[in-house]
Amino acid sequence: MTSNTNTLERERGILIVLSGPSGVGKGTVCAALRKISPDIVYSVSATTRSPRQGEVDGVNYFFKTREQFQQLIDTDEVLEWAEYVDNFYGTPRRFVEETLRSGKDVILEIEVQGALQVKQKFSEGVFIFLLPPSLDELENRIVTRGTETDEVIRSRMSVAIDEIRLMEHYDYAIVNDHVETACAKIQAILAAEHCKKERMYPKIVQWMDEVN
Amino acid sequence: MTSNTNTLERERGILIVLSGPSGVGKGTVCAALRKISPDIVYSVSATTRSPRQGEVDGVNYFFKTREQFQQLIDTDEVLEWAEYVDNFYGTPRRFVEETLRSGKDVILEIEVQGALQVKQKFSEGVFIFLLPPSLDELENRIVTRGTETDEVIRSRMSVAIDEIRLMEHYDYAIVNDHVETACAKIQAILAAEHCKKERMYPKIVQWMDEVN
Repeated sequence: MTSNTNTLERERGILIVLSGPSGVGKGTVCAALRKISPDIVYSVSATTRSPRQGEVDGVNYFFKTREQFQQLIDTDEVLEWAEYVDNFYGTPRRFVEETLRSGKDVILEIEVQGALQVKQKFSEGVFIFLLPPSLDELENRIVTRGTETDEVIRSRMSVAIDEIRLMEHYDYAIVNDHVETACAKIQAILAAEHCKKERMYPKIVQWMDEVN
Repeated sequence: MTSNTNTLERERGILIVLSGPSGVGKGTVCAALRKISPDIVYSVSATTRSPRQGEVDGVNYFFKTREQFQQLIDTDEVLEWAEYVDNFYGTPRRFVEETLRSGKDVILEIEVQGALQVKQKFSEGVFIFLLPPSLDELENRIVTRGTETDEVIRSRMSVAIDEIRLMEHYDYAIVNDHVETACAKIQAILAAEHCKKERMYPKIVQWMDEVN
């Protein structure tokens, strides 16, 4: 009887898509997670905007011409994309795929609409929705961000509520009451997903074949 | 705008079913988990065997007459049951249900066949399969347990391999290479399961209804 424990090792990484309504604190949670989980790779976006001083191609963004970006779209090489202020922004599929294939987990922090695009193209990702502790708290966060008028605040809250309804398309929901707690839950989800039978079973079958 | 964060709190507990082939170390992992996660409630079995000295009804077992146990079976009040050495053993549904309803998580450590019975009656449980680091290691554990003959060992290994094939019916698989690591993975699975959208979404819908 021979056996090879190596075949039981994790092989492919997992894509975590972290999203949630505007103002919920996605960026803060991601920054905290980056410190405590340095092994998780952050997805690098592509953009047609010009590099700012100090920005490095392939680190801050993949800088593309408009023609190059259009070709990425045409060849299905972006998992999601959008246009803001006359520039394209998107998530290149190849960077994500290559990182996952190397065995590393990737995290993509993204707006709700973009996450839904990713879900269509990359359904094996793990989709986490970040929720505010309450709608009052979300309103506070939107208010304290700047000098918005009541009308702007009402409009943003209305958008946020519509975004929260899209939670049904996600796998998990985490209340962002404390950044540390939210990070611990993301880490737990990642650890649990690596134990999913679907991820382990092909390796086990291979392992059984070896001994039979 | 009103909001009620209480509706976001976890409400119902989760039933974790921990199983795996004979010799894999289910009992050791459960004992270690009990120490580090005192909040998890251990399922109490029912049995028709007589109490041993010091055993307390409702703590070590629910002690039942044969007639009482048969009635539990007839009224679908056991999640699984089996007969060993002329005695019935089983998992009473009511204890599990009442504990989950109180908001506490329950763990049930059980043989593979029993776990499959539980799955049929309680599919909302979270089914975790404990694997040996390798088949060689499982053989070592079976050999060092006692003075079994080669034939008995071969027969047990054959049963274990058949049991490992049943992993496909489970949600998660954990390699029991180190007890502490296995416990940490069970804790992560429990934390992640509490964040599952299906568990959060009804509460969110209720929360949205309150503000609309």
